[in-house]
Amino acid sequence: MSDSNDLAGLVAAVHADVAGRIGEGRVADYIPALAKVDPKQFGIAIITCEGETAAAGDAGTAFSIQSVSKVFTLTMVLERLGEKLWERLGREPSGSAFNSIVQLEQERGVPRNPFINAGALVTTDVLMAGRSPRIVIDEILGFLRERTDDGSIAFDAEVARSEAETGFRNRSLANFIRAFRNLAHPVDDVLDVYFHQCAIAMTCRQLARAGLYLANAGLDPVDGDRVASGETARRINAVMLTCGHYDASGDFAYRVGLPGKSGVGGGILAIAPRRASIAVWSPGLNAAGNSLVGSLALERLTARTGWSVF
Amino acid sequence: MSDSNDLAGLVAAVHADVAGRIGEGRVADYIPALAKVDPKQFGIAIITCEGETAAAGDAGTAFSIQSVSKVFTLTMVLERLGEKLWERLGREPSGSAFNSIVQLEQERGVPRNPFINAGALVTTDVLMAGRSPRIVIDEILGFLRERTDDGSIAFDAEVARSEAETGFRNRSLANFIRAFRNLAHPVDDVLDVYFHQCAIAMTCRQLARAGLYLANAGLDPVDGDRVASGETARRINAVMLTCGHYDASGDFAYRVGLPGKSGVGGGILAIAPRRASIAVWSPGLNAAGNSLVGSLALERLTARTGWSVF
Amino acid sequence: MSDSNDLAGLVAAVHADVAGRIGEGRVADYIPALAKVDPKQFGIAIITCEGETAAAGDAGTAFSIQSVSKVFTLTMVLERLGEKLWERLGREPSGSAFNSIVQLEQERGVPRNPFINAGALVTTDVLMAGRSPRIVIDEILGFLRERTDDGSIAFDAEVARSEAETGFRNRSLANFIRAFRNLAHPVDDVLDVYFHQCAIAMTCRQLARAGLYLANAGLDPVDGDRVASGETARRINAVMLTCGHYDASGDFAYRVGLPGKSGVGGGILAIAPRRASIAVWSPGLNAAGNSLVGSLALERLTARTGWSVF
Amino acid sequence: MSDSNDLAGLVAAVHADVAGRIGEGRVADYIPALAKVDPKQFGIAIITCEGETAAAGDAGTAFSIQSVSKVFTLTMVLERLGEKLWERLGREPSGSAFNSIVQLEQERGVPRNPFINAGALVTTDVLMAGRSPRIVIDEILGFLRERTDDGSIAFDAEVARSEAETGFRNRSLANFIRAFRNLAHPVDDVLDVYFHQCAIAMTCRQLARAGLYLANAGLDPVDGDRVASGETARRINAVMLTCGHYDASGDFAYRVGLPGKSGVGGGILAIAPRRASIAVWSPGLNAAGNSLVGSLALERLTARTGWSVF
Repeated sequence: MSDSNDLAGLVAAVHADVAGRIGEGRVADYIPALAKVDPKQFGIAIITCEGETAAAGDAGTAFSIQSVSKVFTLTMVLERLGEKLWERLGREPSGSAFNSIVQLEQERGVPRNPFINAGALVTTDVLMAGRSPRIVIDEILGFLRERTDDGSIAFDAEVARSEAETGFRNRSLANFIRAFRNLAHPVDDVLDVYFHQCAIAMTCRQLARAGLYLANAGLDPVDGDRVASGETARRINAVMLTCGHYDASGDFAYRVGLPGKSGVGGGILAIAPRRASIAVWSPGLNAAGNSLVGSLALERLTARTGWSVF
Repeated sequence: MSDSNDLAGLVAAVHADVAGRIGEGRVADYIPALAKVDPKQFGIAIITCEGETAAAGDAGTAFSIQSVSKVFTLTMVLERLGEKLWERLGREPSGSAFNSIVQLEQERGVPRNPFINAGALVTTDVLMAGRSPRIVIDEILGFLRERTDDGSIAFDAEVARSEAETGFRNRSLANFIRAFRNLAHPVDDVLDVYFHQCAIAMTCRQLARAGLYLANAGLDPVDGDRVASGETARRINAVMLTCGHYDASGDFAYRVGLPGKSGVGGGILAIAPRRASIAVWSPGLNAAGNSLVGSLALERLTARTGWSVF
Repeated sequence: MSDSNDLAGLVAAVHADVAGRIGEGRVADYIPALAKVDPKQFGIAIITCEGETAAAGDAGTAFSIQSVSKVFTLTMVLERLGEKLWERLGREPSGSAFNSIVQLEQERGVPRNPFINAGALVTTDVLMAGRSPRIVIDEILGFLRERTDDGSIAFDAEVARSEAETGFRNRSLANFIRAFRNLAHPVDDVLDVYFHQCAIAMTCRQLARAGLYLANAGLDPVDGDRVASGETARRINAVMLTCGHYDASGDFAYRVGLPGKSGVGGGILAIAPRRASIAVWSPGLNAAGNSLVGSLALERLTARTGWSVF
Repeated sequence: MSDSNDLAGLVAAVHADVAGRIGEGRVADYIPALAKVDPKQFGIAIITCEGETAAAGDAGTAFSIQSVSKVFTLTMVLERLGEKLWERLGREPSGSAFNSIVQLEQERGVPRNPFINAGALVTTDVLMAGRSPRIVIDEILGFLRERTDDGSIAFDAEVARSEAETGFRNRSLANFIRAFRNLAHPVDDVLDVYFHQCAIAMTCRQLARAGLYLANAGLDPVDGDRVASGETARRINAVMLTCGHYDASGDFAYRVGLPGKSGVGGGILAIAPRRASIAVWSPGLNAAGNSLVGSLALERLTARTGWSVF
């Protein structure tokens, strides 16, 4: 860190940097459970590869992690299936919105990358491996509970139900992929898992902790677990950097300079390789569907620390 | 470097890694001057932030830098115009081929990023600033001669003439952008500069040297010149990583993990921030138009050194 | 008719014209019930505005009318809703395949025209008007039974079930439209009706008879029923001519010169305004999904009769 | 005619029908020569296959025929090259705006139809047949002078010059097509002819007279000239009906029911096969770039006469 003596000072400084803008942006309103979240909230938590932690603001408030979950299912799948995953899925930025179906038609049911919705559905389908939705949802929860050493992490049942009731666009994507035979399980089962993984609720503290292995070449430095190979961790970071913020991924790389994955719940997990895992949360979104104040906080963080990978 | 005692050993090892594949890929054939290049060539040159250099293979053979030139014109423009550049140009991966015109129509003449052809034409237009093509071409050459301390760098007149004679697609792009009033100079003048900047011939040694400022936060560590601010250098690296290899940028980030910019002449400039600038060259291209063996060499380089930014 | 003394001679001559090509094309294979149809079949039936009829070949064999059903549901809906229908649906050629979803995204859930699958789903949704699928299916069957004075017309249960089991692409389209709130009924109900209307089985004789009102300004000249206003009939003919053959509509207009609507079962209903209604059937399809020999027969018919509207 | 005793009464009635709306719409403003035209003008002229004529309003005022010229160059080319033309050009509605370049990229330089700008450039290229622009422009003028028996028809030099100076989008299209080797002549020569053919000035009387062969199976009934075969005439009418009004072709077929071709100068040539050739003109355009009041007048005309082909 270039201009902060300690981690606590850093998060406090970043918090102060963005304090005047908390509440900006537009809360996701496609389901009631998200629409009713108070936009005037902001949390940040950092955990370093040495295990040092610091947090500020609403870092202990649980929020819907939504698409941030895609990072963890990708990890689980890549470790099992390896490079064969890429026969069913690309790893290129899409140049399109998160829920676009256009490229799916042009590229015959092969999603551009695992971080747009279409791609995450394929990832989830691979993860299922013939098992029931309930078992797979439990496995995802188990992964996150183990990463955080916190057995209380759960999905928000109301959010999951709302997603299922209103998820016409995701249902459209899943059927479209299925039409090209790129889903092996019943559409409803894949969506069941997908809607539940998106509905998982975590705090900034938990989220930063869960992603720490990505900052440390796949090895969790706190509990010593080998979560992924160093190569897998680096590769997931690469996909996060090029594809993690939908059609604003280039802008995030330009302004923040860290691999990151956002969710419409307002959370962002960012990775400073060899240094730290960072989670920010603020519900108001920018036009591309990423947390407005969260992005800003990360921009301030790298400006203050020089943690940009570039 | 994780497993090489010295830089010379590293480049020799990488050279050996790819030796069996030199000649693979398809040489660009859209102009005779490129089509006649012998594909069985490969060069690599590295220069570190400490000024240490090493090279192997055909690192002293000049080749047409083509789109690698876009990195240097972007530097020149960003230092002058700053963030205002982005009013006329995006910085998002396009998800499309280097010469695609589709998004240009959908986004009303604003190119997605400065590294696709359409975007480079806008960059060149900004650089011109009311001056004649001849003066601007000289300025670009001057920039590269100063960066390399080598006054012999020049453009290949035959290549420039061929580009002008056959560049219908680029002429189409330029007129399209002009139709949306996003070029200020006459189309023929902008193309004149563009075709000449693409026709500049450099060796791997020269190219690695020229890009060194990007590895060192904008300050050339050899001659002490402040070429760009640290922020500008980081930002150019970010754009290189997300957009530097057209619709294979995600794949390059995944496999290599370094900011890089390729050209259809077979050259690639890659930046290992805070470590080194690397140039590779081999004329055979992969399906996305990037040097097949050059990409492979860089993949081996980061596997051997751990220089991936991730 | 320019060169046929009587209608029977005409259909015999057209039959002879195409006899050598019966069996060409590729039978629709997306559901088993269609895939197993013998391609070496061809039927043609004509009924004039004076009530004269003639038929040849397999004109008495029932086939799956598939998308030809869209003409009848459009009639039913336009008579009820009138021009308000076009607030939810376009009437422009799509320039795309029958099951494309691209324009649906660009135009926010408003299908280009009622004859692509997306548009037919909206038409069906309008027709439902709050009623159950069963009632609406019965109403469509009732319409066709009344038009043909033949109470035996029914849907093929095996085809309907197969469509439902494998209709992932239609399910995707319906959910996509629903996401933009352009379906009022549950997606499964709309699809239920749609799959059944496509599974209706009719012979060429029945189909030509059913469409006769379109050739006679909306008034069925045989039973005297006013099926649609003259304006509605002309307008449906116009939509058939510009949109009736998916992305080969221009080619059909160029070669045949009649309003027509094809189905992937191999049937085509063509209308010669003020003269006759014609149905042809042959299961082999061309690349655009229209009956290859059926199109050819209609081309020969207009060449022999001068019935082209142009 | 269903409700008019004579042709003069018909044009007077149609004129009266639209009188209150003359001046509506937006005059084309991309070149000064068009932008300065007074929008409060309307002309209509009809000539029947029996040679009877009638006109009303500003039917004797010359206007820039613009894209209506595409009908005549298509006639000239189809008579010479025949069906081989379609190897370089489609005849399907594009579903896109008149100057779209998107499909041109997807379909590798083969324009969708001869009535969008890209297609007309190919038609013009075919017409040139190795000759100089001057000779080809004279040939087009000669064709129109012969059709109208009026040697005074000429192009508007100011309009032609303005088109050339500001035609960046057409220049882009031409270069794009040339990149796919679908233009045989120099881009500047093809554009030279194209800009001049668009700049031809004609009155409604002249335009209706010029198109009469299309209403009479290719034979001009007044001077007895065989301008095109009956088949060619019918086929041009078919292309006019499906493609003559860009992405509002379906709407024109629906509302008017006649083959027609519009130009951004506000003129429309419409053909009532076996009955009459009709020209209308009013400079104000609708959103799709077709004459607003001209379209309305034709809608009234077919409502009054029953001349719809449907």
